[in-house]
Amino acid sequence: MSRPQRTAVDREIQRLLGRGSTLPGALPALAHGDLWQAFARATEGGKRARPVLLLAAHEAFGGGRHEAAVQVGAALELLHTSFVIQDDVIDGDETRRGAPNLPGSVAAEAREQGASPAGSRRLGVAAGILAGDLGLVAALRAVARCDAPGPVVDRLLDLFESTLHTSAAGELADVRLQLTPAEQPAALRDALAVAELKTAAYSFQLPLHAGALLAGARPAQLTALDEVGALLGIGFQLIDDLLGVFGDEQRTGKSALGDLREGKRTALIAHASTTASWPRLRPLVGRDALDAEQAREARRLLTAAGSRTWVEDLAHWHLDSAVEAAERHALPAPLVDALGRAALEIRRTAAQSLLPLEETAQPLEEAERPSHPSAAREGLPA
Amino acid sequence: MSRPQRTAVDREIQRLLGRGSTLPGALPALAHGDLWQAFARATEGGKRARPVLLLAAHEAFGGGRHEAAVQVGAALELLHTSFVIQDDVIDGDETRRGAPNLPGSVAAEAREQGASPAGSRRLGVAAGILAGDLGLVAALRAVARCDAPGPVVDRLLDLFESTLHTSAAGELADVRLQLTPAEQPAALRDALAVAELKTAAYSFQLPLHAGALLAGARPAQLTALDEVGALLGIGFQLIDDLLGVFGDEQRTGKSALGDLREGKRTALIAHASTTASWPRLRPLVGRDALDAEQAREARRLLTAAGSRTWVEDLAHWHLDSAVEAAERHALPAPLVDALGRAALEIRRTAAQSLLPLEETAQPLEEAERPSHPSAAREGLPA
Repeated sequence: MSRPQRTAVDREIQRLLGRGSTLPGALPALAHGDLWQAFARATEGGKRARPVLLLAAHEAFGGGRHEAAVQVGAALELLHTSFVIQDDVIDGDETRRGAPNLPGSVAAEAREQGASPAGSRRLGVAAGILAGDLGLVAALRAVARCDAPGPVVDRLLDLFESTLHTSAAGELADVRLQLTPAEQPAALRDALAVAELKTAAYSFQLPLHAGALLAGARPAQLTALDEVGALLGIGFQLIDDLLGVFGDEQRTGKSALGDLREGKRTALIAHASTTASWPRLRPLVGRDALDAEQAREARRLLTAAGSRTWVEDLAHWHLDSAVEAAERHALPAPLVDALGRAALEIRRTAAQSLLPLEETAQPLEEAERPSHPSAAREGLPA
Repeated sequence: MSRPQRTAVDREIQRLLGRGSTLPGALPALAHGDLWQAFARATEGGKRARPVLLLAAHEAFGGGRHEAAVQVGAALELLHTSFVIQDDVIDGDETRRGAPNLPGSVAAEAREQGASPAGSRRLGVAAGILAGDLGLVAALRAVARCDAPGPVVDRLLDLFESTLHTSAAGELADVRLQLTPAEQPAALRDALAVAELKTAAYSFQLPLHAGALLAGARPAQLTALDEVGALLGIGFQLIDDLLGVFGDEQRTGKSALGDLREGKRTALIAHASTTASWPRLRPLVGRDALDAEQAREARRLLTAAGSRTWVEDLAHWHLDSAVEAAERHALPAPLVDALGRAALEIRRTAAQSLLPLEETAQPLEEAERPSHPSAAREGLPA
């Protein structure tokens, strides 16, 4: 995205947010101003990856609706912000990237003002749900009022709505998967389905499809974009899963214990559960009180089992396939380039933020030695 | 609302819901079908009070957009369903009207399938938040696509968005009020502001305003409807507050302990806190473990303090004022009649579902006798 495009997207986000801040009008605003300000803060600092894809698709298909594309791109950022906030509420997280998130900062402020811990948490949850609602509504209204012919706007609204259903299905499936008993190994099929539903749909397919729709692309091209978006999105999610376990906390700003403690049923765990390392890994995955040493042990086992490399390969395969599919479907060259850059950006994040393989790997004989006796006792067959 | 109108509204709700149920298309639907079905169930059985007001306003102003009015009316029901579900999530409630609500039934099913209590609760919370989002989006999309001229649709979207901000401000203020320390008496001003923001805005002002907008009413008429809607909505909320404490559980399907246990800062409590009964009431209000006997005592004290009658009078004053304002502003006679019927319906619910005054009142000498010694010790000045 060029600098003027970035400026245009950021300015549009500010414009959309500006409306909300004046809304409750003459009524006593009470907490509303703070809530909306907190939502506005949560939109800041992203890479605007979704508007980038939308604008690239719109331009590549020769679209002339620049203003509408910027407006719908900004709507995508609001939608993303809402999802991130509500996702944190569902996970019970009060931090993100090392700082308090919206529910966390609202709860912290209430605690400082003397409210009980449970009451403060409840206020944070309420603020998160409500801010998410308002972001969704602002996004949808921006789409409904974008400067495009009625039938195009209708199709955009259909697309946003169906994507929201898909994302909700993915989020719910993700939470549900984590409820399956530890004995039941995670299936790769389920992990990939969640990645496609929860991540690829709104972060990749929706921006590409929306940009192309605004530019008047043909149905076959839209179908091709859905395929490309799914591959790119799954590749992205696989890297994100790796970062959740093998990420350098200094760079990701995110604890590398969380996913292991939650026992997230990612592709990484799905692979590991099919290897001989699983009996020793199983007691570490989903262990609430997992400490740093046990996490290191889990990383060593996952690396030694080949799961880390296998998921990295799978991610790269998806990213490669996305660009190949774009070429095979003869999408416009500038779009193929933009997709290549998006894939490269994902690979670069992985290269920069994953702990070096040699650091998480170790010789087989050391991997065999149980560094945490009780875990090994639980896990090893007698 | 006539029977054909009711049928039309119900059919439109089904149509809007039907779209969602086919949405995630070829992707593995996983939990989505169940989620949307649960949302559809949550829309059932209401009185359709919001579409009734909308259709009445639309007709009274001579509106000819019958289909659009039904569609926007159905959207109001979806919006209401979303609010109710997310409100329950915020309150941590798993039942409504004596039966499991959406989060409660999802959680119960997960428990039956062997998930942990905490995990099941989390799944219920996720389902509630996500179903609420989907309902909001379906509602907004129905408004965006209703069969009315572009500028009217734009104003309807503005109205829905600003109302959502107002409701969010009210919901957040409501949760925040309950965090204020018990020593700080609840202010009537705050309780009425919450009633207006949280209830009147979306349940009364929005339907009236939207119906009138669709019919092309004049700005002065719209302003008058906002005034009438606020009065009617506050009256409704005051009766609802009374039902939360003095309601006959057989009729309301709702525990008459909840509001007292939560220490809800309603107008009832605001009044009581200014009376001589307050020192004895205070330890009972917001008491987590309040039992049925203590609740009876709280009701006796609230009745003896005159708070029950005072709030009933205040509610009736608001309902009377709503109809008077409608007449003063010379709103069309059929609309004044419809507003009178709405007010009557609220009064009828109060008459049918509130415990008889003689049952909750008692002679002064008995009220003076502390039936719960420890509460009296805590509360009475030495």
